[in-house]
Amino acid sequence: MLGRYNERPVDEVADQSILAIDLGGTQIRAAHVSPDLTVSCRRALETHDEEGVEAVIDRICAAARAVREDAQRAGLADPVGIGISSPGPLDPWRGVILATPNLAGWVNIPLAARVEEAVGLPAYLERDTNAAVMGEWRYGAAKGADDVIYVTISTGVGGGLVLDGRPLIGKDGTAGEIGHMTVDIDGPLCGDGQPGHAEAIGSGRAIAREGRALLKRGEAPGLAALAADAEVDAELVARAADAGDAACQRVLDSAWVAIGAMCASLVNALNPEVIVLGGSIGCNRPELPSAIRAEIDRRAFPAPAQRVRLEMTQFAGDVSLIGLLPIVNERMTDPSYAKEHA
Amino acid sequence: MLGRYNERPVDEVADQSILAIDLGGTQIRAAHVSPDLTVSCRRALETHDEEGVEAVIDRICAAARAVREDAQRAGLADPVGIGISSPGPLDPWRGVILATPNLAGWVNIPLAARVEEAVGLPAYLERDTNAAVMGEWRYGAAKGADDVIYVTISTGVGGGLVLDGRPLIGKDGTAGEIGHMTVDIDGPLCGDGQPGHAEAIGSGRAIAREGRALLKRGEAPGLAALAADAEVDAELVARAADAGDAACQRVLDSAWVAIGAMCASLVNALNPEVIVLGGSIGCNRPELPSAIRAEIDRRAFPAPAQRVRLEMTQFAGDVSLIGLLPIVNERMTDPSYAKEHA
Repeated sequence: MLGRYNERPVDEVADQSILAIDLGGTQIRAAHVSPDLTVSCRRALETHDEEGVEAVIDRICAAARAVREDAQRAGLADPVGIGISSPGPLDPWRGVILATPNLAGWVNIPLAARVEEAVGLPAYLERDTNAAVMGEWRYGAAKGADDVIYVTISTGVGGGLVLDGRPLIGKDGTAGEIGHMTVDIDGPLCGDGQPGHAEAIGSGRAIAREGRALLKRGEAPGLAALAADAEVDAELVARAADAGDAACQRVLDSAWVAIGAMCASLVNALNPEVIVLGGSIGCNRPELPSAIRAEIDRRAFPAPAQRVRLEMTQFAGDVSLIGLLPIVNERMTDPSYAKEHA
Repeated sequence: MLGRYNERPVDEVADQSILAIDLGGTQIRAAHVSPDLTVSCRRALETHDEEGVEAVIDRICAAARAVREDAQRAGLADPVGIGISSPGPLDPWRGVILATPNLAGWVNIPLAARVEEAVGLPAYLERDTNAAVMGEWRYGAAKGADDVIYVTISTGVGGGLVLDGRPLIGKDGTAGEIGHMTVDIDGPLCGDGQPGHAEAIGSGRAIAREGRALLKRGEAPGLAALAADAEVDAELVARAADAGDAACQRVLDSAWVAIGAMCASLVNALNPEVIVLGGSIGCNRPELPSAIRAEIDRRAFPAPAQRVRLEMTQFAGDVSLIGLLPIVNERMTDPSYAKEHA
């Protein structure tokens, strides 16, 4: 039964505590997650992927052990297993990161097996956005819906899908890579060298790239004033736009059009009930929902456009950690994820 | 249980004969379809939607009655029900065509109820491309696959989805409208006035539009030679390209890039196993599969790009008629489609 989660009805969930790890391009975060969704014993450290795969794996394992020890000292239930969320593409059944534009040098890395061996608990890997859609669908902004798209807008753009009441993982575990949908045929190149993806226009990385280009051409005086002592990132471009830099505002406008066009494509293709917005940019730009809504109304059929609700994540930065709770609990009894795979 | 078909296992199918009707922008086709997939007692007539909705409904009903009488005379099993495939968007549960760019004036037309009343058999409506994906998935090029996208390239561009072993219809019945995904943010307008959809570049209508524009500007000598006595349509643009008209060739190339980008977006977003190509253009341009494959390789992640097979429809122009066979048989026992809906 590859390609699906164990179909245990939501109301019969009797989850046990897990150890949750979120591996990001910037940070590694680890925590104890209990069945009442309390996230505790948090650890966070910088990823520093430039130090190589082994150094990062060592840091992940050390953080996991530290969380487990903290939980024991605090008298919390010992976790039954470990969930790891990470950028994709990855193979969730074997627990292998296949390759990811967001972590330099990570190609065919059996991360789940390595963490399992180091910590002594069964470990399961899932794409961060698939964990996120599980969190919002089971417990958050999309609870009760059958057709859900989680969209993260951060350094990159990604997503996770629940369709017709079930998460869609795909035979390779790569379903939901919506940030790599083409929205502009001859548009700028993505981190993976491919043209015109939504991520290449709408991501934090793309906004920063455009900001740096404006600065270089002397076309963004507001940004130049702010950037004197700081490296240009998406946040700085947004701050310049908010302070009245018209060129920076146009960069943001283009980014939101790309994200909105991507969402509109998904509204026409999949007829979802809810789109949940998350990610560091998705959570922090108040104009984003109305900008996306405008593009959906401009680019999608009336019936599915009227159907879809836009919601903000209920769990913000913890969404993937919380989403790992049902994933680990379900996989531990799901033969597709039996540990001979690892 | 809106949003899904009755989940009867494929091998337990014990279908009975149906009367199948395909309503298209150009033609109305009707036939008897038997459980061994024999399509017989065919009738075909021109749609002439410019004569108004009532005239077209009268023609549909007359064709249906004629097929039923022919079948009786031929000693075939009397159909148990009627399946109608039509362009979308439509409401398959109530049997209502909501609105369609391909049939002028068709807004909120209860077609299933009208045909049912006139012919005296229960009638069910489904989007032509959803019927097509059912045909290919149950009996044709995608048999045995769990994740299937049917892509039709004809006057318009459309599709139907089977994901994780089940057709995806969506809460409004509009899932699979893939031709209306944005592939070129500021691109040409679609029939519905929306910018940059794959259909606005890759459809027969778009190819014809570009051909006429070339002709008007005097930039397509090959097409001009052919078009002296004929209206320009996509087939004529393709003939001119095949005969060496470079401008017409560029129109086709752009069309295939748009279709390929749309397919690549779906490969990244949905991780399908099979994409089945159909439609009058999809079936008749031998360069199309390799052109689409090139765009998938250029725009999609390696794992899902390597996974997906590109196949031609096994049923060509009969694919929607054949796909209506399981749809009608299943709906007759599915409470979601109970006739009080109509």
